[in-house]
Amino acid sequence: MSSFAHRHLLGIEHLTRDDILTLLDEAEGWAAFNRRARKQDQRLAGLTQFNIFFENSTRTLFSFEVAGKRLGAIVANFHAAGSSVQKGETLIDTALTLDAMRPDVMVIRHSETGAAAEVAAAVGCAVVNAGDGTGEHPTQALLDALTMRRRKGRIEGLKVAICGDIRHSRVAGSNMRLLPKLGAELRIVAPPALLPDDSRGLPAFTDLDEGIDGVDVVMMLRIQRERMEASVSGPLDDFHARYGLTRDRLRRAAPDAIVMHPGPMNRGVEIASDVADDRDRSAILEQVEMGVAVRMAVLDVLTRDRRD
Amino acid sequence: MSSFAHRHLLGIEHLTRDDILTLLDEAEGWAAFNRRARKQDQRLAGLTQFNIFFENSTRTLFSFEVAGKRLGAIVANFHAAGSSVQKGETLIDTALTLDAMRPDVMVIRHSETGAAAEVAAAVGCAVVNAGDGTGEHPTQALLDALTMRRRKGRIEGLKVAICGDIRHSRVAGSNMRLLPKLGAELRIVAPPALLPDDSRGLPAFTDLDEGIDGVDVVMMLRIQRERMEASVSGPLDDFHARYGLTRDRLRRAAPDAIVMHPGPMNRGVEIASDVADDRDRSAILEQVEMGVAVRMAVLDVLTRDRRD
Amino acid sequence: MSSFAHRHLLGIEHLTRDDILTLLDEAEGWAAFNRRARKQDQRLAGLTQFNIFFENSTRTLFSFEVAGKRLGAIVANFHAAGSSVQKGETLIDTALTLDAMRPDVMVIRHSETGAAAEVAAAVGCAVVNAGDGTGEHPTQALLDALTMRRRKGRIEGLKVAICGDIRHSRVAGSNMRLLPKLGAELRIVAPPALLPDDSRGLPAFTDLDEGIDGVDVVMMLRIQRERMEASVSGPLDDFHARYGLTRDRLRRAAPDAIVMHPGPMNRGVEIASDVADDRDRSAILEQVEMGVAVRMAVLDVLTRDRRD
Repeated sequence: MSSFAHRHLLGIEHLTRDDILTLLDEAEGWAAFNRRARKQDQRLAGLTQFNIFFENSTRTLFSFEVAGKRLGAIVANFHAAGSSVQKGETLIDTALTLDAMRPDVMVIRHSETGAAAEVAAAVGCAVVNAGDGTGEHPTQALLDALTMRRRKGRIEGLKVAICGDIRHSRVAGSNMRLLPKLGAELRIVAPPALLPDDSRGLPAFTDLDEGIDGVDVVMMLRIQRERMEASVSGPLDDFHARYGLTRDRLRRAAPDAIVMHPGPMNRGVEIASDVADDRDRSAILEQVEMGVAVRMAVLDVLTRDRRD
Repeated sequence: MSSFAHRHLLGIEHLTRDDILTLLDEAEGWAAFNRRARKQDQRLAGLTQFNIFFENSTRTLFSFEVAGKRLGAIVANFHAAGSSVQKGETLIDTALTLDAMRPDVMVIRHSETGAAAEVAAAVGCAVVNAGDGTGEHPTQALLDALTMRRRKGRIEGLKVAICGDIRHSRVAGSNMRLLPKLGAELRIVAPPALLPDDSRGLPAFTDLDEGIDGVDVVMMLRIQRERMEASVSGPLDDFHARYGLTRDRLRRAAPDAIVMHPGPMNRGVEIASDVADDRDRSAILEQVEMGVAVRMAVLDVLTRDRRD
Repeated sequence: MSSFAHRHLLGIEHLTRDDILTLLDEAEGWAAFNRRARKQDQRLAGLTQFNIFFENSTRTLFSFEVAGKRLGAIVANFHAAGSSVQKGETLIDTALTLDAMRPDVMVIRHSETGAAAEVAAAVGCAVVNAGDGTGEHPTQALLDALTMRRRKGRIEGLKVAICGDIRHSRVAGSNMRLLPKLGAELRIVAPPALLPDDSRGLPAFTDLDEGIDGVDVVMMLRIQRERMEASVSGPLDDFHARYGLTRDRLRRAAPDAIVMHPGPMNRGVEIASDVADDRDRSAILEQVEMGVAVRMAVLDVLTRDRRD
């Protein structure tokens, strides 16, 4: 059924177009499943999923927890804050210790780029990267792609602009890898200070109006307050004036363009409230919904060979 | 079977006498269930319950978690501290985000009065108010009523005194709505500064001895240290001397009067230790036990139409 | 099947040799179970396990959580930090409150010696001591014994040295009770300031080289930074020089001696990295693995009479 041959999901970098399509197709099935009255599958019954979060991210953790439980897995959350990690234990010692409890899959969030890959090299179970430093956040890019495909019917040929703090964003990092593999026409938009060193050959804009001109998808990123101040020379309001997505500005995009945001939103900063709340244009809540579906697909696919 | 037609449980305010009796009767069944060796029902199998606590309340959270799990639900706890809420997300954005994960019921605790109702108006699932600001805490009033009915055989005609910080207490708020609907003769007792602006037509006392004279139920409220100091002019011990329930003082109540407290108790402040520990008089632990039963009834009743 | 007649597991102190062997034999079965693809038993289905941790210990909590869930129990974690405990509630009031929710077993970690026994005397459910002050940590000693028996084939006659901060360690406390009951030849090694007042008649050494001479098992304890400084007169590095287990020093032990550590390790302090990582000698990860197995055995055995 599945052509997905990877043991871990560490980043979009390692996936082929077929791998990605397999995950999106599987996730589509889980999206339908999650709209049923009873949402309980048992294919992961007796398998153990550890969510190991070294950074706070309640919403991503929650999404993985719900995904695992709906598949019947035993799910346990390891909150690294206040744990042995704070007693000076190394990442690998923590990972090996938890691996000795014989989980089948570990979901890892860490502030250092490469942390999930480092863990994957050391442990015996499947590892899912739930965000590593400024590296990748592959399930976010997958849920973004699934949302686009559902809203626009395709990804091939779609004009997509990712706007905001591209430089520090692992969401952008994974999307910049995924979307070109599926044939989207991607461009990035940011203040000069927040453009990445390597724009991976993508068209880069520093003017938001130009950057979103004619696009089908405007993907706004969350901006950190401290980076906002550094990214424009002037008072805070300047950021919204120059890089905030308003209804007016959205008219530059295609007439049926959709708006995306990985959340949580700073209303009035990177996105105006009326844009966020426009049910026709905003796909933000569908992104969250697809997040659970994508994570169910990933957990299912990565544990298949352990269940036989 | 049930005549309970509400989609949410936001407060006692909205319930009829029949609604309340339905919930108490159902809870009575769960109280018996919880004394079995195996306490596992599956009627909520495949349904998802989110406990979303913006205020710390480990014990109430725990009670709802146990209730949901004993009914077979998938239960996930969202700890708002350290979450996107702290990143400036609005209550409604958080609620809509979590709702997009397709839960069947949300249990909400929040420091602002009206928060649960605001969420209920926005989301697609059932909402249970687990305490909002100085508003309501309906499951607490229900468990209090169930405890009284079990201990005294009836609520109709029962003389009940609620004593302590009535002004700031949502426990008092919900009880002051519930008990009159079931025909109890309710009165409130507090230092003048802790009486409510609106005593809902109930007899109000500032003297504890007078207030509990001849009552069948003495319900003490938890007092906050900072409010205690403001409520009497004098040193801290004065509070206990004037508003603490002692064995001596309890003689003013009916000979078989019971003592209740929503917990956690300040022993030696609002309640003397020998009163708290008097197994014949104190119904405090039975309140906790009925809390799980009441929450099971509420979760069951609110999700019935989703399970068909 | 089992000759284990205790209602609680409060310490090794109360166990006979037969009790201990029963638990080890049962745990051996669970160790095999945990290596299966599907690790889901249902014997605790409908039973409720509360993990009540007044001290942070993410790894021990996690091990008990996984153990309970693999047995099919309803597991709920009560994090006492930020709970009513911080509102001034007494330990016994907290325990009685939670007991009123009708759990079948409570797992308790507390900073005060005797806390678990105090709770056990008050509640109606089974109590497992998961570490109390400088008292006992019986599941740790059981998992240590199981690891030794698996690695060395026996415990009778085994030469074991426990090294480090014996004085403040409940791990040492439980091992010093357990190992002699199974016929091991136990000795303790520590800086003079970290030897216990009562060495229970065991040979005590203040020189590590002498202490581990010819032993089959070197069990290093975790050292607290602040105690390390107090325990040697001189700079911090002195501790490692005098009491750290290095490859060189390990040559004093038997040629096939194994190394143990309850974790988390301070690499370069009480144990050198190359010793910790030596797969032939180090049994540290097997200890973690046996931890889950031992806790499954304990939870199973203590709840047997409740399941009939």
